[in-house]
Amino acid sequence: MGPLTIIPISGIPEIRPGDPLGEQITTAAAAQDTPLANRDCIVVTQKIVSKVEGRLVPLDHEDLDARRALVEGESVRIIRRRGDLIISETSHGFVCANAGIDLSNVEAGYAALLPVDSDRSAHRIRATVRVAAGVDVAVVVSDTFGRAWRLGLTDVAIGVAGLAAVLDLRGTQDALGRELQVTEVAIADEVAGAADLVMGKSSGIPAVIVRGLEASFLAEGRARDLVRPPSEDLFR
Amino acid sequence: MGPLTIIPISGIPEIRPGDPLGEQITTAAAAQDTPLANRDCIVVTQKIVSKVEGRLVPLDHEDLDARRALVEGESVRIIRRRGDLIISETSHGFVCANAGIDLSNVEAGYAALLPVDSDRSAHRIRATVRVAAGVDVAVVVSDTFGRAWRLGLTDVAIGVAGLAAVLDLRGTQDALGRELQVTEVAIADEVAGAADLVMGKSSGIPAVIVRGLEASFLAEGRARDLVRPPSEDLFR
Repeated sequence: MGPLTIIPISGIPEIRPGDPLGEQITTAAAAQDTPLANRDCIVVTQKIVSKVEGRLVPLDHEDLDARRALVEGESVRIIRRRGDLIISETSHGFVCANAGIDLSNVEAGYAALLPVDSDRSAHRIRATVRVAAGVDVAVVVSDTFGRAWRLGLTDVAIGVAGLAAVLDLRGTQDALGRELQVTEVAIADEVAGAADLVMGKSSGIPAVIVRGLEASFLAEGRARDLVRPPSEDLFR
Repeated sequence: MGPLTIIPISGIPEIRPGDPLGEQITTAAAAQDTPLANRDCIVVTQKIVSKVEGRLVPLDHEDLDARRALVEGESVRIIRRRGDLIISETSHGFVCANAGIDLSNVEAGYAALLPVDSDRSAHRIRATVRVAAGVDVAVVVSDTFGRAWRLGLTDVAIGVAGLAAVLDLRGTQDALGRELQVTEVAIADEVAGAADLVMGKSSGIPAVIVRGLEASFLAEGRARDLVRPPSEDLFR
């Protein structure tokens, strides 16, 4: 397997609702001499996708009651509460803090909700890139989630196009020729986390190229594949 | 921020207890024309670290009672059981399936236990590389864990040397000049996951170079920093 290169795309302009995001990413990548290429995977933060899709809603950040009402409205099930923190399940099936509603890197007086359907968002960006750059890329929409048991947040995939979300290795063998015990790898989440390493939370890099992924990863996945069905989930 | 390059190291020989792992990694990296360099981060799988440290124990893989007894012996607390699956907390504080005991890529009739202290393992590899290659690298020992709520496994850090495990961004500002809401990023886990993308579970690449990490990441962290204290954990 060859090396993987993870390239931050800077110079993406401040995003407004309805902007042609795939086109802006294509232009910015070309302007920094790393034009998009076939088999690249583009990782785009949820925040700019939400902005493009008009998912900003007015919210006084200091008004904790309004905040709580907004989180509850975006939740289909509350999993845990502690103080102002709510861990809940969103309509997409994601379990995360505050229903994924975001206050950083959003104008004061507003909050960014998750895209309604991030897989569709990823497909839309992919289609725009196909037209603008003439290449076929995979797209991951990433967001920053906490985890049970482990401290610190990591970026995970909430939308996927042209990439397997979970890679099923059942039937393959380990290096010693025996059936693999580890069978399902959440590669879309690993791609999102890898991209985060060059995003820099404070520098505002909203898109990253992951170049060199194995060809077998470039299948048709969807973020839904990353949601553990509640019936099989021991922690919901 | 510049690009990040993730380079698989092939040609590492079959590992035996007591082998000078840092030296073998140094030699293999040089042999493929990607010699280790200052500020590289080397990600090494738990499996070869366990082999070097003699953490293989005899186990008949088909004997489910023996398997369960071994898992319970390596656990300090059982979190959940379902069928043959045990989710438990290890002496290190990690919550994972089967106490991290591994049967793939291990000779038949054996199981690989987690290293006793993977931070110390990482420090040892780092020190050996310093002597063998004359460069100062960071080291992550990685393992493959499942997650609550999300399907698929990802690689995470169970040992760290020369790298912040969790990067604390408190006090820094977002791109719009406001205090960041996301404050603690589990970069060691993101590094481990990124490395897994070139490891290929079946191809047996046991070590990877992550090159180009931001200098501020190269602080003195430890895997313990990634363990959420049970008292603050809503899911334990």
